[in-house]
Amino acid sequence: MTRNDANPDDDLARHAQKMAKKKAARDRMMENKTGEKGLVIVHTGPGKGKSSSGFGMIMRCIAHGMPSAVVQFIKGAWDTGERRLLTTHFEDLCQFHAMGEGFTWETQDKSRDIAAAQAGWAKAQDLIRDPKIRMVLLDEINIAFRYGYLDVAEVLAFLADEKPPMTHVVLTGRGAPEALVEAADLVTEMTQVKHPFRAGIKAQAGVEF
Amino acid sequence: MTRNDANPDDDLARHAQKMAKKKAARDRMMENKTGEKGLVIVHTGPGKGKSSSGFGMIMRCIAHGMPSAVVQFIKGAWDTGERRLLTTHFEDLCQFHAMGEGFTWETQDKSRDIAAAQAGWAKAQDLIRDPKIRMVLLDEINIAFRYGYLDVAEVLAFLADEKPPMTHVVLTGRGAPEALVEAADLVTEMTQVKHPFRAGIKAQAGVEF
Repeated sequence: MTRNDANPDDDLARHAQKMAKKKAARDRMMENKTGEKGLVIVHTGPGKGKSSSGFGMIMRCIAHGMPSAVVQFIKGAWDTGERRLLTTHFEDLCQFHAMGEGFTWETQDKSRDIAAAQAGWAKAQDLIRDPKIRMVLLDEINIAFRYGYLDVAEVLAFLADEKPPMTHVVLTGRGAPEALVEAADLVTEMTQVKHPFRAGIKAQAGVEF
Repeated sequence: MTRNDANPDDDLARHAQKMAKKKAARDRMMENKTGEKGLVIVHTGPGKGKSSSGFGMIMRCIAHGMPSAVVQFIKGAWDTGERRLLTTHFEDLCQFHAMGEGFTWETQDKSRDIAAAQAGWAKAQDLIRDPKIRMVLLDEINIAFRYGYLDVAEVLAFLADEKPPMTHVVLTGRGAPEALVEAADLVTEMTQVKHPFRAGIKAQAGVEF
């Protein structure tokens, strides 16, 4: 029999066979993935999507009726879309705490920045300790680590000792400390390939806030 | 005068000075970023967060009262959190179309996969053409490019010719074609640093769906 690549029926049959094999391999692979666990999740790197995918996961929790909470370590009273949506539609399922005072170059006040970060972490500890809350998003907490406003060893010790086993904690911000990456279950680095700021485009509603 | 690093007041003053300089530099940098534009946004790479940050942006649009739409190219009738939230809470602000039939190794039927991708793209064209819709998320469309089910040149020509200037289009999925990366305004690659599947943990509500 001559193999005839031009025959579309043969092509379809080969595809079906290949995919059946792929499915069998995949089923074998997934067979052992049966565990459930509250994860320590890190979104870092200079690219976009660290906070927005954190908020995407919070929205998934809300959809599944899982209580969740957000602590923002940098953003303060800014009227972002995520803040508006969570506080006006889903107050009963998601607590929202904007504990930041703005970027360090906005406040220009190190003691105030440190006090804000510490207050944010105190609030975060209460939320994480509450076993009813299934996901806590610590938005931009890596920035507080980077400036030395929070001690990563203290935060990791708390997560190891006091996080309820089924609670997910999501930590975002560029420059995640090595010890955090080491301790986390799921780490994604957002790499910037191309950004429109370079082309003179400003931050826009829907995209950045 | 001897510089005394141990004096906390000096440290705070130096910090304030440094941050004032940083703010001035930043203000100069942001001065030229005044443009607004509907962006072609790509989330690619093997890491997590491509779809969830797409949904995070859709949620931001909803919060700002900007009509938006989602076309899913792979996922079909699956009851994901994003689908449930959008169709039960925000039907008036966000159209949701799950046009996929499942992963290629699930369907094992190339003609059906091609038909589904083409139908998804037809729906996407209608949505993008509608100038009232401010953001269209084409979830996992890169997978359809990778299998050759959609022609990237055709999609790029359509975006160049027919996308209203203020409409954002977000294309997700690993392995974005080079021509798409070239043409896009904002490209982020999600790099996988660590994933709990490797530790035997399955896909979990809130995190993956």
